[in-house]
Amino acid sequence: MILAQAALAKGAALEPYSYEPRELASTDIEVEISHCGLCFSDIHIIDDGWSRSKYPVVPGHEIVGKVALVGAAVTHLQVGQRVGIGWQRSACLECDLCVSGQENLCPRQEATCLGHHGGLASRIRIDGRFAFALPEAIPSSAAAPLLCGGVTVYAPMRRYGVGATSSVAVIGIGGLGHMALLMLRAMGAEATAFSTSAAKRDEALAMGASDFASSTDPKDLRRHFGRFDLVLSTVHARLDWTSYLQTLKPNGTLCLLGQPPGLIQFPPSLLITGQRSISGSDIGGRAAIREMLRFVARHDIAPVIETMPMAEANAAITRLRQNQVRYRMVLER
Amino acid sequence: MILAQAALAKGAALEPYSYEPRELASTDIEVEISHCGLCFSDIHIIDDGWSRSKYPVVPGHEIVGKVALVGAAVTHLQVGQRVGIGWQRSACLECDLCVSGQENLCPRQEATCLGHHGGLASRIRIDGRFAFALPEAIPSSAAAPLLCGGVTVYAPMRRYGVGATSSVAVIGIGGLGHMALLMLRAMGAEATAFSTSAAKRDEALAMGASDFASSTDPKDLRRHFGRFDLVLSTVHARLDWTSYLQTLKPNGTLCLLGQPPGLIQFPPSLLITGQRSISGSDIGGRAAIREMLRFVARHDIAPVIETMPMAEANAAITRLRQNQVRYRMVLER
Repeated sequence: MILAQAALAKGAALEPYSYEPRELASTDIEVEISHCGLCFSDIHIIDDGWSRSKYPVVPGHEIVGKVALVGAAVTHLQVGQRVGIGWQRSACLECDLCVSGQENLCPRQEATCLGHHGGLASRIRIDGRFAFALPEAIPSSAAAPLLCGGVTVYAPMRRYGVGATSSVAVIGIGGLGHMALLMLRAMGAEATAFSTSAAKRDEALAMGASDFASSTDPKDLRRHFGRFDLVLSTVHARLDWTSYLQTLKPNGTLCLLGQPPGLIQFPPSLLITGQRSISGSDIGGRAAIREMLRFVARHDIAPVIETMPMAEANAAITRLRQNQVRYRMVLER
Repeated sequence: MILAQAALAKGAALEPYSYEPRELASTDIEVEISHCGLCFSDIHIIDDGWSRSKYPVVPGHEIVGKVALVGAAVTHLQVGQRVGIGWQRSACLECDLCVSGQENLCPRQEATCLGHHGGLASRIRIDGRFAFALPEAIPSSAAAPLLCGGVTVYAPMRRYGVGATSSVAVIGIGGLGHMALLMLRAMGAEATAFSTSAAKRDEALAMGASDFASSTDPKDLRRHFGRFDLVLSTVHARLDWTSYLQTLKPNGTLCLLGQPPGLIQFPPSLLITGQRSISGSDIGGRAAIREMLRFVARHDIAPVIETMPMAEANAAITRLRQNQVRYRMVLER
C-alpha cells in the first residue's frame, strides 16, 4: 500500500489517498521517497491544463529517494542506493530515438505523474531504467529540481553548443531560469536575465547574470537587440516574440522551454534576415540527465530551494500558485 | 556609358536606359555581361514590393560575363576571365560576420540591383571581391541562376548537415526548388517535392525527387507527417505552417528561403514536442558560393533553364509573372 496525496477532481486541494502499486516487473524498482520538487507542471496536472489528467491525480515528478525493492532484471541499482526520477517514467527503448539516447522524444514515452501516480507519496514503483544514481556531492533536496527543471535548461544549452564565448538570455527567473543562470556561469557563458520582477535583480546578478532586464518593457528589450546567441524562454506567458527574435545575433536561436498560450506569431523576415531560428526543447534523454548530474556535482551548482514538509503540500502549492517560491519548492518527508 | 534596361516607375515595363558607371575603384572590376538570370526578386524590385526601390531600376542579379577592366588592387581576377555575380555586391569585409565568411549577414551588405543598377545591361562596374571565377565545366547560361538561387538552396543544406542519410522536403518547384532537387540528388539525400502544380510531378521525379505531393492538400501533407529532417520552403506564399511543422521528424527544421506575406503563426507545442525548429536562410557568403560552384561542377548539376535574348526582357518578365518559366529564365546578350 502506497500512501500518497491526491487531487480527487480538477483544481482540488490534495487529500490523503492510498493505492496498491502495480506488480513489480523484472525491470522495476520501488523507491522510498524522501524528497519531491514542485513544478508548475504539477499545478497544470492538478488543474487539467492539458486536458489529459485522470483523477485521482498524485502530482510530483522531481523525486529523490532510496531504492527499496529491485526487480529480477535490475542490475544497475541496488537496494539502499539513492536515486532520482524526473518527468519521464518510461519509453519503448527500441525506437530510433530511444536507441540514440533521445528517450525524451520517444512516441511511446510516459510521464511520471500524468496517467500514473507521482511523487507526493511514501513510495513509487517505476521502471528502474528511468531512475538515476545521484552523485554523492549533490544533497537530496538540491537533486530533486535538477531531475526535471535542471535537465530542461541543461539539454538545450548543450544542443546549441553553449560555452565560454556564448551570450545567452534567460527569460523568467524562477525554478528553471535560476538553474539556467547557475549553469551558464559554470559554463563560462555571458548570461542576461529577463524577468517581470525587478525584485529579482540582485539575486539574478548574484547567480551570475551580467545583466538584468524587464521581460516586458519594450525599451529594455530594444537595448538588447542583436546581442544573444541563444534565448531560453522558461515562461508560460505570451511575450513579444517579434522583439525577442530581434535580441538574437545572426544565426541565433530562441528556444521555448515553457509553453505560452495561443499561437506564436512573428514576421517571417525576422527569420530570413539574420538567419534566426525559433525552436523548442522538451526535458532531456537519459544520457543528458546523467551528464547534467555529473556537471552539477563537479561545478558545485546549488539550486536555490525552499523546503517544506510533504504533509504541507497544499500550503506549498499555494505558494507556488502565488509565485512566491524562491526559486524551487522541494517537499521533504 | 553602360547601356541598360530600366523600369522608370513602379511596375513599369523596361525601357532602354543608359548611365555613366562610377569611377573604377582600386578593388572594382567592370564585367561585360553575357548572361543574366531572372528571379522573382527582380519582379519584386520592379514592383517596389519591399518599398526600397529607387527608380530608374535596372534589375538583374544573376550575372555572368567577362572581366573587361580591373582596378589597381585586383589580383585574383584577370581581364578576359569569366566571372559570376549574385545578389550581393558588397559588404564591409571588416565585421565579425564578414571575417568569418558570412558576408551575406553583414549589416552593411549591399544588393546588386537594389539601390544600384543591375545586370540587364551591357556591363556592370562592381567590387571585384564579390565576383566569382566560374569553373570551366559550368556553361554560362547554367551558371547564372546558381549565383543567387543556387546558393540560396545550397547554403541551408550545408548548414543543416544534409547528406546521404537525410530526408528533405522542398516546397515550391520553381527556380530555387528545382535546383534544390538536383543538389539533393547529388548529396545522396531523399527528396520530396511539394508543389501546387501537379504537372510538375514527372519532371520533379526525373530531377531526383523520390516523392511528389501537393503543397496545399491537407491529406497529402498528413501523409508526410514525421518524415523530414529538413523542409526548405522556396515559396512566397502563405502556407499551412502548422501542418508543415508536423511533417518534420523530431529535431527537424523548417527553413524559409522565400518570404511569405503577413505573419507566420503556429502553436508553440509543435516546437517543444519533438524539438522542432523554424528558421530562415538568406543567400550565402563568399565561401559558400565558391564551394557551391565547385560542387555543381564536380557533380555535373545542370539547372533547367529557358533562354531568351536580353532584348526581349519584357517578354521574359511576363513569362515569369505568369509562372510559365521551366524552371529559370536566363537572358543572353
